[in-house]
Amino acid sequence: MLQALREYPQTWQDRQDSAAAWFKTLRDRICAEFEKLEDELSGGPKIGMDAGRFVRTPWSRNDSITPNHSGSQLQGGGEMSLMRGRVFEKVGVNFSCVHGKFSGVFAPQIPGAVESDGQFWAAGISLVAHMQSPLVPAVHMNTRMIVTSKSWFGGGADLTPIYENIKDTADFHGALKDCCDRHDPAYHPKFKSWCDEYFFLSHRNEPRGIGGIFYDYLDSGDWDADFAFTQDVGKTFAQIYPDLVRRHMNKDWTEEQREHQLIRRGRYVEFNLLYDRGTQFGLKTGGNTEAILMSMPPEAKWP
Amino acid sequence: MLQALREYPQTWQDRQDSAAAWFKTLRDRICAEFEKLEDELSGGPKIGMDAGRFVRTPWSRNDSITPNHSGSQLQGGGEMSLMRGRVFEKVGVNFSCVHGKFSGVFAPQIPGAVESDGQFWAAGISLVAHMQSPLVPAVHMNTRMIVTSKSWFGGGADLTPIYENIKDTADFHGALKDCCDRHDPAYHPKFKSWCDEYFFLSHRNEPRGIGGIFYDYLDSGDWDADFAFTQDVGKTFAQIYPDLVRRHMNKDWTEEQREHQLIRRGRYVEFNLLYDRGTQFGLKTGGNTEAILMSMPPEAKWP
Repeated sequence: MLQALREYPQTWQDRQDSAAAWFKTLRDRICAEFEKLEDELSGGPKIGMDAGRFVRTPWSRNDSITPNHSGSQLQGGGEMSLMRGRVFEKVGVNFSCVHGKFSGVFAPQIPGAVESDGQFWAAGISLVAHMQSPLVPAVHMNTRMIVTSKSWFGGGADLTPIYENIKDTADFHGALKDCCDRHDPAYHPKFKSWCDEYFFLSHRNEPRGIGGIFYDYLDSGDWDADFAFTQDVGKTFAQIYPDLVRRHMNKDWTEEQREHQLIRRGRYVEFNLLYDRGTQFGLKTGGNTEAILMSMPPEAKWP
Repeated sequence: MLQALREYPQTWQDRQDSAAAWFKTLRDRICAEFEKLEDELSGGPKIGMDAGRFVRTPWSRNDSITPNHSGSQLQGGGEMSLMRGRVFEKVGVNFSCVHGKFSGVFAPQIPGAVESDGQFWAAGISLVAHMQSPLVPAVHMNTRMIVTSKSWFGGGADLTPIYENIKDTADFHGALKDCCDRHDPAYHPKFKSWCDEYFFLSHRNEPRGIGGIFYDYLDSGDWDADFAFTQDVGKTFAQIYPDLVRRHMNKDWTEEQREHQLIRRGRYVEFNLLYDRGTQFGLKTGGNTEAILMSMPPEAKWP
């Protein structure tokens, strides 16, 4: 069935396999980096806690007989990796690789899905980290490959500091700019603006954080180049974010700073449930609710 | 302008004035009842706190010159009443009375709004209470009158116990059934089912709470009768809910019960941001964000 999605089925099967394998490799690398941070902690109010470790939970779906509530069919599965630690209050890293058939109402919203008779394949990694310390920024990263009668990559990374730090902001944007520039000088200005537009809470007229990059429907005509870029985004994230965490994780913080963090997390919840396309897409296509809502902060306030 | 919305402008102006005045009266009555509960508290872990009092904050909007981000125009305003107390951890009671013009994209979704050239008038009261005690149910109540080229009432009340209590459930449904039956024996079965369908989290396949009643587009052809019913819903709520609070508010609770309450509140957040039409309507028509999101719980967890 999948081989019918695009021409040259064997080529596409190989590409899908390569992309899915990469997302798993990246997941392993990031989880290892984050566990290392848990071990490295040497100060701050949570030092008495044990270093956290990821817990992996595989999940699978098979709606081939009974379509889910959206009328879509979903097969395949994924693996949630969740850590509740002393640096990372809650961090979820999801890998998923699914295929199926969009329902009639959903297909017209997805490029190439009408032409593929609703059939799609998708693999990706998504990550949200909510930190113990209000001085360490929260972060989101996601990369994915999608195939219908078309195929493309999408993803990005964006930072949500509770207290903005000018050097962190500059270094985060700088790392992503260098990454983009290694592939196409047109990418960074475009993907940075896209990120600013996307991660915006219009009902509050405020950005979610300081942004980063966001891209979608990336199909330059050179699949290898697009895949290399997507891999580079992942590798760049796996380097710069731990650097930022190390700068602040050992500091003490106040009750007032914690309270402010919990309120800012409320905004994060608002964005994810009101606007985030990944969340809405996942919930509407009958994805794994626990995996999708792993992005919710462990605690939030609307005082 | 408003007088053009329906035929017999003077009659409709009088009706709108009467409905708006009633929603204010109901607001005053409910706030007084709730403050009485704050005074009455005689046990439980929060007894050392001061009894809470509502703080009222009026707000007004005038988008007649520059339409808001949705392209709609909104004029008028309202009053938020917010109390953070020792029985009510956070309760918001909003009164609003607005009029304006829906944008072209929004008008077709509202009955009679295409025929009124997008013009509308709306007044109502909405209330959400999140309680200190996990043994006291959270609650939501809302009634409203809307006028375009048509006019109707809508509203309802529903209960969200953290721990379901069979007698509370029976008495809450019983009070609403008696209220409905005083007006039309067909109302309760219809409005109870509507409530169960509406307050349902399909992504979790679970109801928000134990339900109550939900009605909309109520226009029997007898405006006085529909208004009398809407008034009765408000009065019934103002009686039954304080009764339920009194049954449990003086009891002690455990840390474990509090934790469970915070997790259940996460579901409340999910419902309001993913599904609630009032929230989406308000945010999309450029309503007052603070007033709309007053329904968010003071604290919630997704552990």
